[in-house]
Amino acid sequence: MLKEFPLSAVTIDDAFWNARLTTNRTVSLHYQLEQLKTTGRLDNFRKAAGTMSGKFQGRCFNDSDAYKWIEAASYSLTKYDDPVLAEEMQSIVELVRAAQEPDGYLNSYFTVNEPDKKWTNLGIMHELYCAGHLFQAAAAHVQATGTDTLVTVAKRCADHIYDVFGPEGRRGIAGHPEVEVGLIDLYRVTGEERYLKLAVRFVEQRGQPDSPIQDEYENLECIAGDESSKISFRQHFERAGHYCGEYCQDHMPLRNQTEAVGHAVRATYLYAGATDVAALSGDEGLFKALLEIWHNMTGKRMYVTGGIGSAWEDESFGPDYDLPNASSYAETCAAVGSIMWSHRLSMYKPESKFADSIERTLYNAVLAGVSLTGDRFFYTNPLESDGIAHPYAHQRRNRFSIERQGWFTTACCPPNVARLFASLEKYIYLQRDSEVWINQFIASTVKAEISGQTVTITQNSSCPWDGLATFSISAGRPVTMKVLARVPAWCDHVELELNGEPLALQVENGYAVVERMWQDNDELTLRLTMPVMVVESHPCVKENRGRIALIRGPLVYCVEQIDNRIPVGKLAMPVQQEFVTKQENHLLGGIKTIRGRAIDLGSVPGSEELYGPVKQLDADKTEEFVAIPYYAWANRGRCAMTVWIHKICS
Amino acid sequence: MLKEFPLSAVTIDDAFWNARLTTNRTVSLHYQLEQLKTTGRLDNFRKAAGTMSGKFQGRCFNDSDAYKWIEAASYSLTKYDDPVLAEEMQSIVELVRAAQEPDGYLNSYFTVNEPDKKWTNLGIMHELYCAGHLFQAAAAHVQATGTDTLVTVAKRCADHIYDVFGPEGRRGIAGHPEVEVGLIDLYRVTGEERYLKLAVRFVEQRGQPDSPIQDEYENLECIAGDESSKISFRQHFERAGHYCGEYCQDHMPLRNQTEAVGHAVRATYLYAGATDVAALSGDEGLFKALLEIWHNMTGKRMYVTGGIGSAWEDESFGPDYDLPNASSYAETCAAVGSIMWSHRLSMYKPESKFADSIERTLYNAVLAGVSLTGDRFFYTNPLESDGIAHPYAHQRRNRFSIERQGWFTTACCPPNVARLFASLEKYIYLQRDSEVWINQFIASTVKAEISGQTVTITQNSSCPWDGLATFSISAGRPVTMKVLARVPAWCDHVELELNGEPLALQVENGYAVVERMWQDNDELTLRLTMPVMVVESHPCVKENRGRIALIRGPLVYCVEQIDNRIPVGKLAMPVQQEFVTKQENHLLGGIKTIRGRAIDLGSVPGSEELYGPVKQLDADKTEEFVAIPYYAWANRGRCAMTVWIHKICS
Repeated sequence: MLKEFPLSAVTIDDAFWNARLTTNRTVSLHYQLEQLKTTGRLDNFRKAAGTMSGKFQGRCFNDSDAYKWIEAASYSLTKYDDPVLAEEMQSIVELVRAAQEPDGYLNSYFTVNEPDKKWTNLGIMHELYCAGHLFQAAAAHVQATGTDTLVTVAKRCADHIYDVFGPEGRRGIAGHPEVEVGLIDLYRVTGEERYLKLAVRFVEQRGQPDSPIQDEYENLECIAGDESSKISFRQHFERAGHYCGEYCQDHMPLRNQTEAVGHAVRATYLYAGATDVAALSGDEGLFKALLEIWHNMTGKRMYVTGGIGSAWEDESFGPDYDLPNASSYAETCAAVGSIMWSHRLSMYKPESKFADSIERTLYNAVLAGVSLTGDRFFYTNPLESDGIAHPYAHQRRNRFSIERQGWFTTACCPPNVARLFASLEKYIYLQRDSEVWINQFIASTVKAEISGQTVTITQNSSCPWDGLATFSISAGRPVTMKVLARVPAWCDHVELELNGEPLALQVENGYAVVERMWQDNDELTLRLTMPVMVVESHPCVKENRGRIALIRGPLVYCVEQIDNRIPVGKLAMPVQQEFVTKQENHLLGGIKTIRGRAIDLGSVPGSEELYGPVKQLDADKTEEFVAIPYYAWANRGRCAMTVWIHKICS
Repeated sequence: MLKEFPLSAVTIDDAFWNARLTTNRTVSLHYQLEQLKTTGRLDNFRKAAGTMSGKFQGRCFNDSDAYKWIEAASYSLTKYDDPVLAEEMQSIVELVRAAQEPDGYLNSYFTVNEPDKKWTNLGIMHELYCAGHLFQAAAAHVQATGTDTLVTVAKRCADHIYDVFGPEGRRGIAGHPEVEVGLIDLYRVTGEERYLKLAVRFVEQRGQPDSPIQDEYENLECIAGDESSKISFRQHFERAGHYCGEYCQDHMPLRNQTEAVGHAVRATYLYAGATDVAALSGDEGLFKALLEIWHNMTGKRMYVTGGIGSAWEDESFGPDYDLPNASSYAETCAAVGSIMWSHRLSMYKPESKFADSIERTLYNAVLAGVSLTGDRFFYTNPLESDGIAHPYAHQRRNRFSIERQGWFTTACCPPNVARLFASLEKYIYLQRDSEVWINQFIASTVKAEISGQTVTITQNSSCPWDGLATFSISAGRPVTMKVLARVPAWCDHVELELNGEPLALQVENGYAVVERMWQDNDELTLRLTMPVMVVESHPCVKENRGRIALIRGPLVYCVEQIDNRIPVGKLAMPVQQEFVTKQENHLLGGIKTIRGRAIDLGSVPGSEELYGPVKQLDADKTEEFVAIPYYAWANRGRCAMTVWIHKICS
């Protein structure tokens, strides 16, 4: 079993990421704090504590946004001083503490609005979900501050939940998983076995006969909640036709499941928690099921960007290969959940495919979720847009937009990205004994304790723009250490050098392995080829038939109308051509563009006919196109865009 | 304005069609008669006449199946003696006559089951629809037999309808059009102007404010009908969300409409009747609208087979370019309706595109609707099948099948094909003064009255297998005649010869024109190239992106699993290749196959990956594939099939 390094042991200093992480720290966190304040999310805690009067404001799960923010701020403060941020965080922690009831119960919606309905609507009302985020925040907070203010609150809450739903308590599961990962995090920082036991119990109870949450959906009249929640849930229920069973992975025991199903955020949070549960409790059957689900997700139900959850009706996974582009839900939170899950798998079963998936998802599905300015967000992430309107714009919810939004009524995504970025250090390296595993090529320093001394590894990396990575070793005395560097799936040729001399490549489980007695100042170099790859989909992905996508390294590219004369929906390109990449520092925060030749399908004779002879490439008719990284789209106003580009035979 | 030749003036003797038409005459007609008898469809008339007791049996529109059968039998008897058939037909005509009420009303459902509800549910209950089929049957019957038994019944019924819905009567339109074409046919054989006037009135009233049928849908409780009809209509209404307005082309005046919308059979029947109305009343505005609708239908909403109506939920036209293959509704009746309509357009605006569309539809969408044996039928016609089940098999209606069925509860399609085949002579030639227009290449003889003498033109044609057609003239004395032979859209090169000598090609409106003083025994030859054409769809047809179809002459081809090793869903072929055609007389009643080289996408390394490098053709890995005409599929048991084949770049 591999382990994360403490956040404090890793420091990022990366040409690509510095700008994004600085923006996250200096803009996003402060901007989101302002939203928490102005939307009543913090006032709800005051109302619960009795220091402010009035009804709960907003959706029943709004406490979780504050918890995610605390988690993100804690990560940030672990690495970077920010007295203002620290003070703000502490005052929120105080609000949370004050809102807790004497028995440990903590949920401002129920305390304020429906104190007699606690734990009566586990399926819909998100109490356990909010608790899970509290636990994750507390675990981050104690690591950041060394103080147990919040972890004490979390433990009292967890103890209360253990009393209610533990082995001596009643049956219960969360309609929206999250409490499972939360309990594991809390178990890790407190060592309290009961929290692990409770997480196991929540995972095991899911999908059993007579689900404890089934009835709640069948009688919607009994939903507790503010009126807008009731209406929203009822509409959702009527539209999607369900809100239980497969929707929340409660249709059969998880160990019997084989496919990624239901609401994609619920799914990945559950799978992540269950992966911890399986590994920590040595449950091989459960772990095997989770691997099968993961392969189904990544092999049949994932966008090329790493986005997941294609069905807009219920934010869920669709059937195999059903991956619509313009209406792709691909919720930013689901991408974050996917990373959470793959990260845990990579710890318990170190194969490079998990970190490959994290990389793909991070650089595309997640990164697209926030603007370059750090204060505008996508909830759903389409892979194609006509530049006019989202296909579901008529739903009148601002999540169905082709422009990033400032905030959402359900604001799960912005703080989710914030906490991921603020803890990006966690995803770069893993450790097991004297092994250091390199999962991501992000320039950084890691201090590893190996054989009783601190060994510093300094990574320099030109990713995602180029494939050169060097690792400099700093060690007081020679040290026997096994370095395992991921060979990315996008790389078809890798060369290794040690101190400038070629080194034979040895690959285990997708990692290039160098095991030796390292000397101070040793330098390991990886040269990863990073050509423009022209990829196509499995033929069962109807949406993408006859279309190709450009990928270079971890980045999926797209064509955005503003850079191209040819209408992007009619832009067609031959597969075999010389693509030209160019660093453009003044474009979109500095990117590498891909340029090549394409034709305008609309200009081909007969192009308006319903059926006609196959169009062949006329080389004289080609003109230049420009592709940009997908993550950078929609930063220059409303604009047509597509990831999948028509292919033409030359 | 061109005119049809009387059925008696044309005699088909064609290598391709003789077998199909003989089967239609000797098998289909008798088989369908048996169905009419055993399913209570004839008994319903006896019950209405009081010669049998009991309730009406089946769906409310079942009278129409008997009328369509009479129409088909009449056409057949015009050309071919069959005393048994003649006697059976006459006895049915007697049943119909006896079922008519004293005031001319004729509909066995209402007479038997709900005599006090007549004309109260025009939208749903199909009374005017059944009347329309009675009129068409009567027009065919009088031409076949020279007796006015049925036409007298029809006139009494039409007169009654004129009293109820004519200029002095109430407003009313038919939920399912058909009465319009019926009235026109009756007008043509009787010369009674009131029937034309009534048809005009029915067309004009459609789409006006306060539709006379709107209310009937809004209060479904008031539907007259047997219980199963009520349930079926209610389910349909709830599923499709409507049963009026656009569904039956009643959303705006027809002259303002621009798109082919709603239920495809209702649509084409209406458009056909309205085309007659526009032409006969000189209504250019209406005619212009119909042309625009026709271009929308053929240019954006038609399958490559000529099938129309892609939306299974309500048997309707979908949006532009929405043409799913496995679930294509493409009802056989809608294809027949499309031919009825295009035929009328070709009379009033003689351009070759109308006959092109008829040919495409006839040889593919319609011909596929009946088995080679003549006693099994498709209601819906998919362009793709996995060989296991129709995508909507769970609907448990046998129209959603990948095998032809013996009969249907709603049995509109089988007799519709029968009447089309039995009157195929109508579609080959048209006449205007001393012009003879050749619309279809079907070997036959036509006797034309030109300048006071009978000129016989004998067409020999190798269509659809080859593109050679000759026309031999037999005339007692030289005759000035203009022959106009359609140059099919599938032909990119045509050569003309007169008596073996090359003749310069002169084309008007898509017809090769030869105007001269013809001598007895003159022979005109058309040599039409008929290569294998590799076609693709407009890029907006998502279903067909990256896929191609093989077309040769009028025939669309498909690959059926029984002929191919490669799973047809994974069969991919390069566009540029030498296709080999081969006459195979022992296969499927004698067909020409197309053979070429294809690869098995499933055998390409990485083929199971969700995303991977674009597969390039490996010429060593190709193997032979066999394609057969689409019309012949599903005659050898349950079998995977596809018209649209993956394309691979070479």
